[in-house]
This record gives sequence, C-alpha cells and structure tokens, in this order.
Amino acid sequence: MSFHEKIKDNIHKNKDDYIKFLQEIVQEPTTTENEQGAQKLVAERLKEKGLEVDVWDPDYDELIKSKFFNPLRDNYEGSPNVVGVLKGTEDGRSLILNGHIDVVPAGDESKWTYDPYGGQVVDGKLYGRGTTDMKGGNIATLIALETIINIGIELKGDVIYESVIEEETGGAGTLAAIQRGYKADVAIIPEPSEMRIFPKQQGSLWFEVTVKGVSAHGGTRYEGVSALEKGWIVFEEIMNLEEKRNKPLRKDPLYKDNPIPIPINIGQFNGGYFPSAVAEEATLQGRYGVAPGESLEEAKEEFISMLDNLKYIDEWFENKPATVEWGGIHLPPGGCDLDHPMLEILKGKYVEVEKEEPVIAGSNWGTDGGLLTQAGGIPSIIFGPGTTSMAHFTDEYVELDKIFKTAEIIALAMIDWCEVANSDE
Amino acid sequence: MSFHEKIKDNIHKNKDDYIKFLQEIVQEPTTTENEQGAQKLVAERLKEKGLEVDVWDPDYDELIKSKFFNPLRDNYEGSPNVVGVLKGTEDGRSLILNGHIDVVPAGDESKWTYDPYGGQVVDGKLYGRGTTDMKGGNIATLIALETIINIGIELKGDVIYESVIEEETGGAGTLAAIQRGYKADVAIIPEPSEMRIFPKQQGSLWFEVTVKGVSAHGGTRYEGVSALEKGWIVFEEIMNLEEKRNKPLRKDPLYKDNPIPIPINIGQFNGGYFPSAVAEEATLQGRYGVAPGESLEEAKEEFISMLDNLKYIDEWFENKPATVEWGGIHLPPGGCDLDHPMLEILKGKYVEVEKEEPVIAGSNWGTDGGLLTQAGGIPSIIFGPGTTSMAHFTDEYVELDKIFKTAEIIALAMIDWCEVANSDE
Repeated sequence: MSFHEKIKDNIHKNKDDYIKFLQEIVQEPTTTENEQGAQKLVAERLKEKGLEVDVWDPDYDELIKSKFFNPLRDNYEGSPNVVGVLKGTEDGRSLILNGHIDVVPAGDESKWTYDPYGGQVVDGKLYGRGTTDMKGGNIATLIALETIINIGIELKGDVIYESVIEEETGGAGTLAAIQRGYKADVAIIPEPSEMRIFPKQQGSLWFEVTVKGVSAHGGTRYEGVSALEKGWIVFEEIMNLEEKRNKPLRKDPLYKDNPIPIPINIGQFNGGYFPSAVAEEATLQGRYGVAPGESLEEAKEEFISMLDNLKYIDEWFENKPATVEWGGIHLPPGGCDLDHPMLEILKGKYVEVEKEEPVIAGSNWGTDGGLLTQAGGIPSIIFGPGTTSMAHFTDEYVELDKIFKTAEIIALAMIDWCEVANSDE
Repeated sequence: MSFHEKIKDNIHKNKDDYIKFLQEIVQEPTTTENEQGAQKLVAERLKEKGLEVDVWDPDYDELIKSKFFNPLRDNYEGSPNVVGVLKGTEDGRSLILNGHIDVVPAGDESKWTYDPYGGQVVDGKLYGRGTTDMKGGNIATLIALETIINIGIELKGDVIYESVIEEETGGAGTLAAIQRGYKADVAIIPEPSEMRIFPKQQGSLWFEVTVKGVSAHGGTRYEGVSALEKGWIVFEEIMNLEEKRNKPLRKDPLYKDNPIPIPINIGQFNGGYFPSAVAEEATLQGRYGVAPGESLEEAKEEFISMLDNLKYIDEWFENKPATVEWGGIHLPPGGCDLDHPMLEILKGKYVEVEKEEPVIAGSNWGTDGGLLTQAGGIPSIIFGPGTTSMAHFTDEYVELDKIFKTAEIIALAMIDWCEVANSDE
C-alpha cells in the first residue's frame, strides 16, 4: 500500500470522528474573548496524539512592542493560543499549519436556516458560524497531521500546528506565536480558498477619513459648506485611486480573473448631526487593499498623497484638508516566491488527488499569512476547503468532501516537504 | 404730545426694567420640558398689567386630533402655554402677538464667550441662548403692549399675547392655543427677521430617505452593490429637485435677494456598518422647504414622484426603490396677502420710526406662523428684532436698540389696527 493509499484509507476510516470533532468545535461560539472552550478541545486532542502542546494567553505588553500589532484589545486573559509541535527526527524542512479559532459574530440569528452554533450536517455540508472561516480548514490540517501519525510515519522536519486567536480582529494570536519563537520554513493557512492555491495574499488597512464643512441653518444652507458634498469628492478620489492602483495588477496572471485585485471598499459614510443643519463633518471608513510585495507604509503614503492632492480638485481642501486615521486592521500582505518548492509540491499533490490543475491566484483578503511572512519571515501559502463567499455570512457552511480532499493533499505535501525518516514502506 | 411721542417717551423711561425682565427670562433655560420657570414670570407680568391670563398644559389627546400636530412628545405636563388677553372695548380688529418661549440647547457651553444663560449685556447686545430666537422678540411685543397700557390707551379690538412652548420641535404650543379658541384677525410673530417684514414664510418638512444595497466582503466588493453609491444618486436627484422647485420663486420679488428661496438641506447621510463590508443601507435625512401657498401634501407628492423616477436614472431603483419617511418637523407655510392692511400699516410705521423703507421678503424658515395661517386661518406676519444668523448659534445675542425700535413700531401699528376707543388726546 502506497503512502497515498494509506492516507486515503485512514482518512476514510475516521471520517465520522472528524465530523464529530468539527461539530464540537463549531458548537463553541468562539467570537473574540470566547475562544477558551474550543481551544481546550484542540489542546486535548493534540496532546492525545502525542504532540508537545503549548497553551498560553498572549501578552499585551509583548505584543505592543511590534509595529505589526493591531491593539484592539488590551488584555488577552482567558483567550489562549494553542500550539502543538510534532517534532521531526532530525533537522528536516519544517512546516507551520496555522489557523484561527476565532469567528465573527453570527449577526441576526433569526435569519439563519440552521443554528449558527449547531454544526448540523445537511447534504454533505456542515453549517454554522466559522465552518468555512475557518474551523473547517483547521480540521483539514488536523486530519492531515493525525493521518501521518495514524499511519506510523515519522517526519524529519517539525510540523507546528497553530490554533490562534484574534485573526478576525487583526492577528494578535499569530503575532504572539511568532514572538514566542514558533518559526518554520514555510506555512500553510487553510483559509477558505475553495481549494485554490494562493501564493500571494493581499494585505489590508482600515482607514477613517475626516472631511470638514461649515455648519449653517438648513433654511440658509448657502451660508454653509456641506461636509457631505465635500465628502463625496473624497469618495470619488478614493475610487480613482483604486483604479490607478489596480491597473498594474490586472496584467498579473494571479489576478487575471479578478475584477478588482486590490479593492478599496468604502464601507461607511457618516456625516451631519441634524436634518435641518448643514453638515460640518463627515467621515469615510473603509478597507484599503495592499498589494502583495507592497509595504503598509508605501500603501499609506500613496493614500495620503491622494488626500494632499484634493486641493487641486477643489480649493476647499487647501484650508480644510481631509485627514486620515489608520485604525482597526492593518494586515501586511503575505505570500511566497512563485518558484517556492512548497508551491510546486502542493500543485503536484493537487493534481494527484483531484486529477486536474489547481487554480493559482492571489487572495482578495488579508490573512495571518501577512504576519507570518512580514513579521515572522516565513513564506506562506493559503490553501483551504472553505467556500469563500460564505465567510462571515448567514448560513455559513463548509463542504465536508472538500475538507477530506484538502487533508489528503496536505498530508501528501507534508511527506514530500518534511520527508519521511522511518521506512516502513 | 402725540401718541408716537408718548410711546417713545414711555419706552425710554422703562428701558432698564425691560432689560432686567429680558435677563430674567434668558436666565431660565427653557429647552423643551423646562419652560415652566419662564412661563411663570411671563404670566405674573401679564397679570400685573391687568390682562386676563390663561395658563394651561397642552393636551396630547386634543393635539393628536389635528393633522398639523408633530407628535414629538406624548405629554406636556409641566410645560404650560401662557396667553394674556387685553380685551378691547368693542368689536374692533383683533391682533395676536405670538412668540415661543422654548429655546434650542446651548450646545458646547465651553465655546461660549458669555454664559448662555447669563443674559450679560455688552456694547448694547444682550447675550444668551434664545435672546435672538426669540425671547428678545417676545419682549419687544410685550413692551409694545405694556406701553399702550402705560400711556392709558384703550383699544377697540382685542390684543392676545401668546407665550407658547414647543416651536422648535414642531409647534405643539401654538397648535394648542388655536385649539383652545384663540383667534384674531391677524398675527405678528417677532421671530428674528432683523426688522425685515416677512409677509410670506416658507414651511418645512423633515424627511428620511432609505436606500438599499447588497452587502459583500470588502475584498470582493464587486460582488455587492454599495448603498453609499446609490445613496449619492439620490442625493444628486434631491439637489436637482431643489433647483427645479426654486426656479419659479427666483422671479418672486420677495425672494429676489435669496440664493435659494426654498432650500432642501440634506443634513445627514449615514450608511454602512463595517469598514470592510459593502454598505447595504444608507439613509439621507434632511429638511425640505415648502413654498408659501403650497400645501404639505403637494410638496410631499413632488418629492415622492422624484423618488419614483429614480428608476429611469438607474435601473437599480426598479427593484430596490428608495423610500421616504416624513418624521420630526412638518411645518406648513404661512403668511398673509400682499395687500393685507396690517402689512401696509407695519410698512408705514417702519418708515415713521426708521426713516427708511423696510425690507419686505419671504422667510427662509418655518415658524408658528404656518400653523396660525393654515390651522387657525389667521394671516401672519413675521417682524422681529433678532439677528437671523445668530439663531441656534454660539454666542447668540440680540441688539437692545432693535428691541426698542421694534416695540415702538408694533405699538404704533397696534393703535392703527385695533383703533383707539378713548380719546385722551
């Protein structure tokens, strides 16, 4: 029996157990600050499999030393990271399997067909908040790891399984794991790519632009200057900046099927305080896509320069410049070289399992891969089973079949990358 | 000594007393629900002068029967109206002097140079919230009334002095006074017109338009439809409607110096819930100027028709129409015929006192005059001492000299309108 056959066979044998475990994890509503229940289950499971397990609450005082920190919380007590290490027999190529345990809130639960924390299985889909983003992915890498252990393979290189907190709110968990010293030669993050392989992941910044006007009574509105109207000029210029920044990327084969490779999304526009008064302030809040290879600083500079140039479009901005605050999320872009050997291995294993070429693309969203790459110096690849469009949505689900296929491909890739030390076969 | 000389003389003699009384009234912070202190002072003063005084809390159950009611409160306990009647000797032409006692909040008090509830006099200006809008005006009509009494004139027609609540929040006080049966042949309202005479006053409606989009993750924003972008289309169409509605009024001599006779002010634009999500809803809130002579229903119909036609500009609105709610203020327009005899009298008395022609114009804002005219059938004229631009603003003030001039003109007009019964002179 080849490794591949053993892997397939072993996964098949244990399917029900994996589904049950995924259900237990989904039944833990791991929104920020509520991660502990699920993390205990993960830690116990890794211990049972014989891994060295490290459970710790990230330390704000340590995190704040890093320029990559998004300080959205000032205390991580009761919100542990879990890392399990499957030690290699010698100094082989090491691998991080990184996934976040936190989920975004379920939103209006009455809109869900299935209990968002039920984990119900219907027609091969497991439903619930976080199933696609990214508990289903975490189970896929866990299956890959357990399968290697189950079939008696010892690897030369370490495999580090990371179940981290706070990805949805800026990456404090992964940053804490990097600071704690967990490094490897490459990382795979099973975020919901629908089994596409993303060697490039864009970063993202959250911005809040403030635009000033002059208030006046609505009945003599011509005595004021509407911050709403000035805000719209800024809105349009931000959209022009998006067009300009995306032009070069449209030629990139990784983004060829993507209408807007690095989008700028203005998600909120709020201005004015009274129906019958001219608005004296407006704010535009949004998400600014950062190109793979671009630094956060370069991206910010281009944005600020656009704001500075507003005065040439409307002289109002000469004396009342629009200003920007970078708040909330700032995730650097991540990725690996396009000739990285792990990328080649993954492609090959994908073909072996799926009998077709994989889609290689750039991600539309930021992930913890950016931190691994930029803060940790670790090349990162996104490859996971989840359905992209289901992330953060009502009736989120993951296809169970994709979980098992992803696990199979990653287990095979793990063998090639970390290399087999024993030789049962 | 002519009536005019007696009036001038008597006002001059009592100036300090009037200033002191205005200060006492300004020192009462008569924001909504806090009118009682000032109303007591007014009622006492009217009683001392020998008027029949009526003090009562408006009754919600009665108000709600009127289509003109803006139900922003459901209880008026402790917020009395005060009406004093100076009975005429026979069935002469009657006059209402209507003014509101309520003020808008002072806003950020730290920005005020003078205590907003201090009533400090500096260089002939009396400072404080409500001095211009419209306690200074109320004192001017009170002075006119007291002067007539002081100099021993008896009038043929009734003079009804109304100190009402709730003008700033929609006119419940004046509506209650109409419902209680206070009627007259004409009304003067000393709102801050800077001693211009307004025989036409526009009305106003508050609207809230809701625009729908489709949410999506910011990284794949092209999968959504931004309610902010759709909201801006509505914004522009509302501005086009303003242009269209103002065209005919620009030829009206009453509005010739007014850049936008009946403005539509979009005061608030709010949309989106998350920087990294496509906004699925936006709201536009504003104030819609209603032309003198136009009914609120006609104005609403034209607005709704504009919304209905959005689908021809962007087919998005075919299935996701923008909707409007009329909330908050709906003040009908008010005024009198341009050949109304009281208008002629006021003009004449203005020339007599000021030695120049008055400015006759249309008001930019709604007042209780709309209710007097439309709910009460009483022609109304705005003529007051306050500085228009100071209404609702920091460091609001009223010029004392303008108060006394306004009082002088109104006292003279009162004599001509109500006619003198006795003949001391």
